[in-house]
Amino acid sequence: MSTYEDRLTALRAELARRRLDGFVVPLTDEHMSEYVGAYAQRLAWLTGFQGSAGSAVVLPADAAIFTDGRYTLQVREQVDGSHWSYQPVPQASIAGYLAQHAPDDARIGYDPWLHTRDWVAQASAALTARGAELVAVDTNPVDAVWPDRPAPSNATLVVHSDRHAGRTSADKRQDIADWLVTKGADAVVLAALDAIAWTLNVRGSDVDHTPVALAYAIVNADATADLFVAPEKMADDVMQHLGNAVRVHPRDAFADHLRTLRGQRIAVDPTQAVAAIFARLEDGGARVLEARDPTLVAKAIKNDGEIAGQRAAQARDGAALTRFLHWLSIEAPKGGLTELSAAAKLEAFRRENGDLVDLSFDSISGAGPNGAICHYRVDAASNRPIEIDSLYLIDSGGQYRDGTTDVTRTVAVGTPTADMRDRFTRVLKGHIALSQAVFPEGTVGGQLDVLARQYLWAVGLDYPHGTGHGVGAFLSVHEGPQRISPAWSSQSGGSEPLRAGMILSNEPGYYKAGEYGIRIENLLLVERREIAGAEQPMLGFETLTFAPIDRALIDVDLLDRSERAWLDAYHADVRTRIGAQLDGDARTWLETVTAPIA
Amino acid sequence: MSTYEDRLTALRAELARRRLDGFVVPLTDEHMSEYVGAYAQRLAWLTGFQGSAGSAVVLPADAAIFTDGRYTLQVREQVDGSHWSYQPVPQASIAGYLAQHAPDDARIGYDPWLHTRDWVAQASAALTARGAELVAVDTNPVDAVWPDRPAPSNATLVVHSDRHAGRTSADKRQDIADWLVTKGADAVVLAALDAIAWTLNVRGSDVDHTPVALAYAIVNADATADLFVAPEKMADDVMQHLGNAVRVHPRDAFADHLRTLRGQRIAVDPTQAVAAIFARLEDGGARVLEARDPTLVAKAIKNDGEIAGQRAAQARDGAALTRFLHWLSIEAPKGGLTELSAAAKLEAFRRENGDLVDLSFDSISGAGPNGAICHYRVDAASNRPIEIDSLYLIDSGGQYRDGTTDVTRTVAVGTPTADMRDRFTRVLKGHIALSQAVFPEGTVGGQLDVLARQYLWAVGLDYPHGTGHGVGAFLSVHEGPQRISPAWSSQSGGSEPLRAGMILSNEPGYYKAGEYGIRIENLLLVERREIAGAEQPMLGFETLTFAPIDRALIDVDLLDRSERAWLDAYHADVRTRIGAQLDGDARTWLETVTAPIA
Repeated sequence: MSTYEDRLTALRAELARRRLDGFVVPLTDEHMSEYVGAYAQRLAWLTGFQGSAGSAVVLPADAAIFTDGRYTLQVREQVDGSHWSYQPVPQASIAGYLAQHAPDDARIGYDPWLHTRDWVAQASAALTARGAELVAVDTNPVDAVWPDRPAPSNATLVVHSDRHAGRTSADKRQDIADWLVTKGADAVVLAALDAIAWTLNVRGSDVDHTPVALAYAIVNADATADLFVAPEKMADDVMQHLGNAVRVHPRDAFADHLRTLRGQRIAVDPTQAVAAIFARLEDGGARVLEARDPTLVAKAIKNDGEIAGQRAAQARDGAALTRFLHWLSIEAPKGGLTELSAAAKLEAFRRENGDLVDLSFDSISGAGPNGAICHYRVDAASNRPIEIDSLYLIDSGGQYRDGTTDVTRTVAVGTPTADMRDRFTRVLKGHIALSQAVFPEGTVGGQLDVLARQYLWAVGLDYPHGTGHGVGAFLSVHEGPQRISPAWSSQSGGSEPLRAGMILSNEPGYYKAGEYGIRIENLLLVERREIAGAEQPMLGFETLTFAPIDRALIDVDLLDRSERAWLDAYHADVRTRIGAQLDGDARTWLETVTAPIA
Repeated sequence: MSTYEDRLTALRAELARRRLDGFVVPLTDEHMSEYVGAYAQRLAWLTGFQGSAGSAVVLPADAAIFTDGRYTLQVREQVDGSHWSYQPVPQASIAGYLAQHAPDDARIGYDPWLHTRDWVAQASAALTARGAELVAVDTNPVDAVWPDRPAPSNATLVVHSDRHAGRTSADKRQDIADWLVTKGADAVVLAALDAIAWTLNVRGSDVDHTPVALAYAIVNADATADLFVAPEKMADDVMQHLGNAVRVHPRDAFADHLRTLRGQRIAVDPTQAVAAIFARLEDGGARVLEARDPTLVAKAIKNDGEIAGQRAAQARDGAALTRFLHWLSIEAPKGGLTELSAAAKLEAFRRENGDLVDLSFDSISGAGPNGAICHYRVDAASNRPIEIDSLYLIDSGGQYRDGTTDVTRTVAVGTPTADMRDRFTRVLKGHIALSQAVFPEGTVGGQLDVLARQYLWAVGLDYPHGTGHGVGAFLSVHEGPQRISPAWSSQSGGSEPLRAGMILSNEPGYYKAGEYGIRIENLLLVERREIAGAEQPMLGFETLTFAPIDRALIDVDLLDRSERAWLDAYHADVRTRIGAQLDGDARTWLETVTAPIA
């Protein structure tokens, strides 16, 4: 196997052969996905970086890797500093770096299937100021020097039943068609994999933890669709499910197909469709209408079928997590558990019921100081024992056909310190405040974020991440557009109005570097609230996630009456919904740990 | 005196004479001021509308007036619906209206001294789509048909002492010069009247309630300035104060002066400078750099001298308000008081101490249902008696040489209903929550806004305005850039980071249409907070305003311990700071109404 140094050298030689002075390597795929298939893991192959967000630039003499604050330590461990310079985002940017480091008159390559048009415009402007040029490549030069690059997954698609989907694909496509009419457009390109899966009521397994299939789709104003997907992935039942109104083409035919739409008015979402899609539509004489993907909000607002499925999935998933917490309460104090063994046991509990399709993400299993690493991913090298008198944080979730779960619990092993209990209680108070929020229609997540932070702020503490993200229905565990986070933050959907039917996580935390991490995460469903005397339509949250919250970490004196009442009522719900699925010691244990606190 | 119908007819004739098919009449002046002098009250003269925000369009056959939700009722009372159509903002816009109603190929006039460049670009684009054209006029056609139009005020300028300003003008100009160097610019145009007054440590009285003078200024990279102001307004002491580094020119010379800056790089704030300023700079060959007015944040962050002045002004103003509240507690139950007589009495108390320069805005004196009109301005026609068993809301402030105040109190006359007490207590809880907020540096007002609303939201209620605005130092009572309001709202500064030294109002309310209004407003000073164990620099608020809060309106059972403690401590501060300025019955009364609540 080649070294990372060899790979960088090979890429530079390939660039020279193509008469390019540099190349940009993002961590994404042709669909602007958050998680990408192995075939598209070019950044990891080239640099060794294993994080979930980053990008790199290779120049003849310099090479730089760009990562945000979450990966400051990790990138230094995984990427060789003698060949790569570390660039912090958002202080540094690729455009800024190129403007500073690119040779005069340089030709810097980029793969137009891996960047948005906005990115291309920005980077081009920065280079133009230097007399340099950004050049779209026809084929990715990394692929040319990556001999054992995996092929894209050829996993077959499966039908997502109308019962779980809650609506037929024909019905969804009709809504999209109606939207196209209001926009005066002939068709819309769906580039995001979850948008395609949602629209056609199909699922795939081409990406770890997210049940989507590599494909493109175009939905037309007559409510038909064109689906571009590798033919070998299409089984008969899926073809039958799609029916005549969905024409299936090879995925490879998509790029050329875009060139055949002369004169048509095509809606494209510039945040989800890559630059190459725009370029090919325009080459072919189509008229491009920039518009937000019409499935984005429709997908975020769960229908009754999806909500019923989510509740069933949550009850099942909560029972697995509760069994695990019971097991942990017995095993951890004996010593000998590790982050890896605990995560494996939790996965086993989830698999036991037989309905688990996949985890919804790599479990974050953090013992002691590893719990303070927000996006920690345990591996053999980092694996720590779960020690006595420490905190253990487990953030995990499952993909079930009826719903996607995401839950975090933090438990004390042995005796927690007063500081741990103080911090945990402040995090819990914020969690409760957000859970209990009642707010008018039109309120955005950015308005509510402070409710979860206020008790930490009061003592000068905070957490360096948003409070909540959207969650899909047997789809992405991170699903937009809504978020509970400050409205102006970069990746934010904090300025998106919350609507009844949206699902969001509620996950405040506190991280003491080198010592411990705390996070309490439940999923919430936005629901209408009928309030006597209300002067406008109001919304609130129904909690969807049920598993005990460790009372050993709660400083009861810090809770007011309403918070104690919330906690006791929540634990009563946990007993009701989870208790019946348990028996023996586990059930007895659950009764004990969910008893009223005061 | 001509009728409004005559005026509209005369304007249409003038437009026809100029071969214009329409004209846009905004409510602003050449400085994008919030409050404008009588000479610039073209909208009021033309339509009769007395509100503080609005605009109008006159076409050959149509005329429309645009106002926001605050003025829905008022515009219908003041403006004749048989000649004007009422257009609600933000649903309707001038650009949208013109696109729909302007004749094809129309030439629509606008006064480039009364619009931002962005507005011109938007309106032009909308008209171009119709084949119509937006045309800048050399002189305002309203002025041509307004025979008795007042001349601009010729009030003299006065020196704002270095003690009150806390810094010399030379020092401020040096900071601006340093900023110009970092921007690579030669000079900056200051178009906002308060920016000029702040920079030069001068005040004026050309605008009601805001101590500014009609002028323009240019500050240069050598820290000198050019001031454009009517020569008759300049007394010797002001000339001496300005010194040699400030060259004084006639105000009329400004427009031509802009054409003489060929080759210079001139910074201009596009939100504060009108389109005509850009046009003249560009005509003359200057290079325009769009940049935020460098005085905006500097002015918002009060220095030690300004803070000391603000505290002194608040103590003085609070004593006047407290004397008024004592007087009201005796007189109101007897019957016979009115909104006008009460407001006059409060002004008299403010004038008694001899230091009042002006009110800081027209007092909002709202009895019973008039209290529910958020921007109510009492006049002879609307004047209501203050009745027994009703609420009375008084929102008022003073301009003192050492500070600007703004305070609202709501009092029960007779016996309040349970609903009134419930609503008042929820407003108070929100007021207290915001007062007690502790937050990290970098937090913006939009994050904190919910703290003041949460207890109303819990029962389906809200208030239709922001929670807080910035306040000047013997300058505008509404001063940017910071605000406490949802970050995305149109007029908002809700996304501006709060910094130590900024002053903001804290004024949640509740308005029961047709019945009563409630608002509790104090000014807050952002201050650094030293917290043991804090992991980042934290900020909090010092309350600046002191006057009793009506305990008869508080439902004590709705307050938690911490809220009761806040109230008692606040009232103890009121006794300390205000009590010593009172004597006899007033002092005794104050002791009683500020006694601990529980």
